[in-house]
Amino acid sequence: MATQRILDFIATRRPDGPCMVLDLDVVRENYRAFEKALPDSRIFYAVKANPAPEVLKLLADMGSSFDTASVAEIEMALDAGATPSRISFGNTIKKERDIARAYQLGIRLFAVDCEAEVEKVARSAPGSRVFCRVLTDGEGAEWPLSRKFGCVPSMAVGVLRHAYSLGLDAYGVSFHVGSQQTDLSAWDRALGDAEMVFKTLADEGIVLKMVNMGGGFPTRYLKDVPQAEAYGQAIFGYLRKHFGNTLPETIIEPGRGMVGNAGVVKTEVVLISKKSEDDDKRWIYLDIGKFGGLAETMDEAIRYKIVTPRDGDELAPCVLAGPTCDSADVLYEKTPYPLPLSLTIGDEILIEGTGAYTTTYSAVAFNGFEPLRSYVI
Amino acid sequence: MATQRILDFIATRRPDGPCMVLDLDVVRENYRAFEKALPDSRIFYAVKANPAPEVLKLLADMGSSFDTASVAEIEMALDAGATPSRISFGNTIKKERDIARAYQLGIRLFAVDCEAEVEKVARSAPGSRVFCRVLTDGEGAEWPLSRKFGCVPSMAVGVLRHAYSLGLDAYGVSFHVGSQQTDLSAWDRALGDAEMVFKTLADEGIVLKMVNMGGGFPTRYLKDVPQAEAYGQAIFGYLRKHFGNTLPETIIEPGRGMVGNAGVVKTEVVLISKKSEDDDKRWIYLDIGKFGGLAETMDEAIRYKIVTPRDGDELAPCVLAGPTCDSADVLYEKTPYPLPLSLTIGDEILIEGTGAYTTTYSAVAFNGFEPLRSYVI
Repeated sequence: MATQRILDFIATRRPDGPCMVLDLDVVRENYRAFEKALPDSRIFYAVKANPAPEVLKLLADMGSSFDTASVAEIEMALDAGATPSRISFGNTIKKERDIARAYQLGIRLFAVDCEAEVEKVARSAPGSRVFCRVLTDGEGAEWPLSRKFGCVPSMAVGVLRHAYSLGLDAYGVSFHVGSQQTDLSAWDRALGDAEMVFKTLADEGIVLKMVNMGGGFPTRYLKDVPQAEAYGQAIFGYLRKHFGNTLPETIIEPGRGMVGNAGVVKTEVVLISKKSEDDDKRWIYLDIGKFGGLAETMDEAIRYKIVTPRDGDELAPCVLAGPTCDSADVLYEKTPYPLPLSLTIGDEILIEGTGAYTTTYSAVAFNGFEPLRSYVI
Repeated sequence: MATQRILDFIATRRPDGPCMVLDLDVVRENYRAFEKALPDSRIFYAVKANPAPEVLKLLADMGSSFDTASVAEIEMALDAGATPSRISFGNTIKKERDIARAYQLGIRLFAVDCEAEVEKVARSAPGSRVFCRVLTDGEGAEWPLSRKFGCVPSMAVGVLRHAYSLGLDAYGVSFHVGSQQTDLSAWDRALGDAEMVFKTLADEGIVLKMVNMGGGFPTRYLKDVPQAEAYGQAIFGYLRKHFGNTLPETIIEPGRGMVGNAGVVKTEVVLISKKSEDDDKRWIYLDIGKFGGLAETMDEAIRYKIVTPRDGDELAPCVLAGPTCDSADVLYEKTPYPLPLSLTIGDEILIEGTGAYTTTYSAVAFNGFEPLRSYVI
């Protein structure tokens, strides 16, 4: 949603070219909503969603911890004021020299999903805590995850056993139910898997302590989704169901859920055309596309809400595309987007819910276009 | 192909992290091959393929002209020493203020594909030459183009007529047969369409002069493709077939064909793992992926040739993935890539044919990873 502050900023500052404007007040509200919804979970903000220093500083001041994907993100979280104990190196794919660098910086919590990664951590970050990522099926997610991260639960038992045998602190398991997950039962299944790993290892005397429930908390796009509170209650219920009275420590890693709805992309209609005299839909070209920050429109997975100055006028379906000379730079074509027939070249339009996974996805210089500018207000 | 100069550079300089190394000698050879193959065509290098200043300088010195997608690319071509008469603004999607800026910089050749764009050019670059892009079917291309650019031939007639009526120089037509086009008859069909537009307008007294045959000239990936000479001969034949003895001026716009095989990405194996004890393939994670410059592996469209230090050892299929925490950052999964079973974490591997559409596609800071470094030697 474009807040009044965002609308005022765009109206007053008149930034030239496409940009993303993010309202910190919304991030603050989101953080408080997560705290309220899951009061017993530690919040590790997924820095990759939006690493703007202002966002990290706000969240660090509010007490957030940070889930990081690289040494650069660890350094950003430290710069924002987080202590090393509030930072996890959550990428399961790490160069051993990056693990060593993170260890030097004080990081003691690492994600793994196979024995080879455990061995790197044991060598270069001895004694650290590790949690093993478990594969989930991703059913119900708008942006389902591939099998890239994690291993099956039975293998996770072996990975954590190996960590224990190498002197690491076999600390827990993690999962991720998929981005924009709207089916709450996905957490039920994943927590059931986690409990199996806990129980199997406990029988061997290895006591896990933590369940990292990842992200997947949806931001509002076009559809109405259950609020953070509903998620919290349901997840708490599943924790009780699987772990009874000995609840593990829990971590959540919201990224999109923390910043997605706080940001709005301002873009401009560059061209409106048809491909033939009898074409039944218009092509509308914007000054931002797949390579300018909207990479998540890949396969039309995410359908952002678009606000135009002509809303209320008669609608007709459009193919929406970006400004580059790349023919793959098309946002919505399989499912054309209904936009006002009165829309005109030069109109400024807003793409809502774009606070996450936009600025950093942007190509560095494709077609000579500069990366997406970002204003944090 | 990794040339000896590239291999020596990597061995001597030992660049840390993923990088793309490009050998200018190969670019020089490619330019000469295009000159030789199509001696009567002007070569407009598609700057977007690789805008490295050294590449632009070399090509400007050799007499190349430049196809540009943005004002920034126009400025790069000018900086490299090209005169404005050797630069076309080849993007059909242009802000009117960018057309005005290009006109100020001396540019007088613009691509269009609809009447609205013609009107922008007529207002902001009066009297300039315009060429209208015609849609082709893209059949036979490895990376077929969408319908994003161009209009049907019958509509192109109207677009150029409109340009003429607004005082522009209705200069010609352009087409693009799709990237990595290996079916020569694609040029036959496109030139037939072009001739129809020429003839229809000639009957009204509007004499077009130029056919811009775009790019699509393949670089060598895994498959053997006809050489530039074969392409040239075939295209010349089709020109004669359709235009007889009054051949138009012709332009070609090689991008990938000029620089693709001149570059090699050096990357490192970060992790090798399986998802379960009985997984039938390994997952191999590199320090470069879809967001680090290999965006063209999207939908596994382009299959780069990979060279490892263990070539010759027994092969087995692998899923190949990038280093980010993004689950879409997988290069080859639907068709697993056969790689040596002996491959080891830390091994340096080369991804060949990556001189085009890599460095500028790279995300600006996704997951905290820096954009792909580039060394032009």
